[in-house]
Amino acid sequence: MGDPAGIGPEVIAKAWARRETEALPCFFAVGDVRAVSQVWTGPVERIDDPRDAAKVFNRALPVVSVVDGDAIVPGRPDIGGARCALQSLELAAGLARSDAASGLVTAPISKAELYRIGFTYPGQTEFVAERCGVARENAVMMLAGPTLRVVPITIHEPLADVPSTLTVELIVARARTTARGLTRDFGIAAPRLALAGLNPHAGESGAIGREEIEVMQPAVAQLRAEGIDIVGPLAADTMFHPRARAKYDAALCAYHDQALIPIKTLHFDDGVNITLGLPIVRTSPDHGTAFDIAGEDVAEPGAMIAAIRMAGEAAARRAAVA
Amino acid sequence: MGDPAGIGPEVIAKAWARRETEALPCFFAVGDVRAVSQVWTGPVERIDDPRDAAKVFNRALPVVSVVDGDAIVPGRPDIGGARCALQSLELAAGLARSDAASGLVTAPISKAELYRIGFTYPGQTEFVAERCGVARENAVMMLAGPTLRVVPITIHEPLADVPSTLTVELIVARARTTARGLTRDFGIAAPRLALAGLNPHAGESGAIGREEIEVMQPAVAQLRAEGIDIVGPLAADTMFHPRARAKYDAALCAYHDQALIPIKTLHFDDGVNITLGLPIVRTSPDHGTAFDIAGEDVAEPGAMIAAIRMAGEAAARRAAVA
Repeated sequence: MGDPAGIGPEVIAKAWARRETEALPCFFAVGDVRAVSQVWTGPVERIDDPRDAAKVFNRALPVVSVVDGDAIVPGRPDIGGARCALQSLELAAGLARSDAASGLVTAPISKAELYRIGFTYPGQTEFVAERCGVARENAVMMLAGPTLRVVPITIHEPLADVPSTLTVELIVARARTTARGLTRDFGIAAPRLALAGLNPHAGESGAIGREEIEVMQPAVAQLRAEGIDIVGPLAADTMFHPRARAKYDAALCAYHDQALIPIKTLHFDDGVNITLGLPIVRTSPDHGTAFDIAGEDVAEPGAMIAAIRMAGEAAARRAAVA
Repeated sequence: MGDPAGIGPEVIAKAWARRETEALPCFFAVGDVRAVSQVWTGPVERIDDPRDAAKVFNRALPVVSVVDGDAIVPGRPDIGGARCALQSLELAAGLARSDAASGLVTAPISKAELYRIGFTYPGQTEFVAERCGVARENAVMMLAGPTLRVVPITIHEPLADVPSTLTVELIVARARTTARGLTRDFGIAAPRLALAGLNPHAGESGAIGREEIEVMQPAVAQLRAEGIDIVGPLAADTMFHPRARAKYDAALCAYHDQALIPIKTLHFDDGVNITLGLPIVRTSPDHGTAFDIAGEDVAEPGAMIAAIRMAGEAAARRAAVA
């Protein structure tokens, strides 16, 4: 449910309300059941055992409730809400890890509030990775929309640090996880990757920067030798128009904005964050807590619906192979 | 006409063929008249005086021819073509500078070929700026499409050099020229600018880089004190979806790909490069010579049509004020 004072409870409830028109798989919420019922007038049913979700799902939103702390006020994040968010995440991750759930969809949290209660992770992704026994650097963030998938190779680095952070090893590791994830979670048997150059025009043969020659080309050569279908480094600015996007299944980008600008330009309202490289399926709607509109019944559930659908599809693919 | 062996001659001819449906203003080509007639079967008429263009325009594409060198082979750039491109550019810039033309539209050139004949400019923009008596750093490149205008503050810098290249003075100068250009060439009386942050999430209050605090915020403060309506630095990844784009008339971006990725993602086929800060109107279709398809009658004239239309509109606005 993420932060119960954010729009998480509302978009989960709205997704449940559209479960038939959107053909969503069965899901249940984990968090404070009151956080849902106070922002939504539809049916909510508390369950204690995730196995009851399938029975309840047709008539009400099933909720595994984690706390009976102070009341949540929509739009007013506080320590009680942060505790609820953390307990929800911990429990939901455990349920997915133990196969009591086929996948995990995380609603947005407030990192500032979580840090006040001792949370030390950069985000939910790293927390989930650790709970799954995966080193955080091996959990790869992909943003996926209907017409584009992108993976930023570096994420929350200052731009000045990006060139020195890019190494052959890092690019190779990200590309391997991306290729495996495209097969495992998206059902693409022979995934095609495209690597975006760091510099303008991918460096113009070294005239505008040498990282393409010294780091990116060797990484691509190594990946191709391993049998991974990857092209590049390509000029990033001409990689994201419709004809260019048709040529690859995922774009590996050198840094945050190179990946996030195109995906959010194209899919601001239905982009999904999916974590590759984990033993569990984990997705997340690509938006924040939006405390400013929480409780006002205006939040759009499109990204949450897309995240639930993508998690369901990925889980079904993994189950079919297993 | 740009490089006569590229798609310039073809897209100019195709733009002329659509002059009525696209309601284009009168224009004439400058370059090798044979380069047009060998890739296009429509009417072409050589003129010696630009004043004859208006008489000819209804029945044929008027061409001011500059060379009678060796024959041009579409798709085969050579020194003869480079000489033709340079002479065309020189003559066309002079005609615009002397008011024999209301504006200049440049088709794509091959810089590699031009460098072989002693051309020393980074591109046509800097050449035109110098011919207009404007320092090249004061000629500002804007990319404009139907739903977005962007200005890269730095352009062909290696990414590693971008942070140190950004200064308060540079941002202020680019923003001033952009604001003036939006009024002068686009008729926007009170232009609204938005500045994109350099770092992910615009630095998150200094947590991911300090350039926003140390360079960008002071630049914005100075510009606002001058009466320029500018907001930012904003998180770049959330600046380019439709609702965000509606809030500004131009986005000032820190570096090449931050500006070029969104404009080419959205307007790959109809983006126009317009140079602000010059005494003449100058536009250019935002594509290259495309030697690989030259002469095959498959080049799309959409960007050239948009460039001609934008030049005509800007020239009409300047004439109305003069």
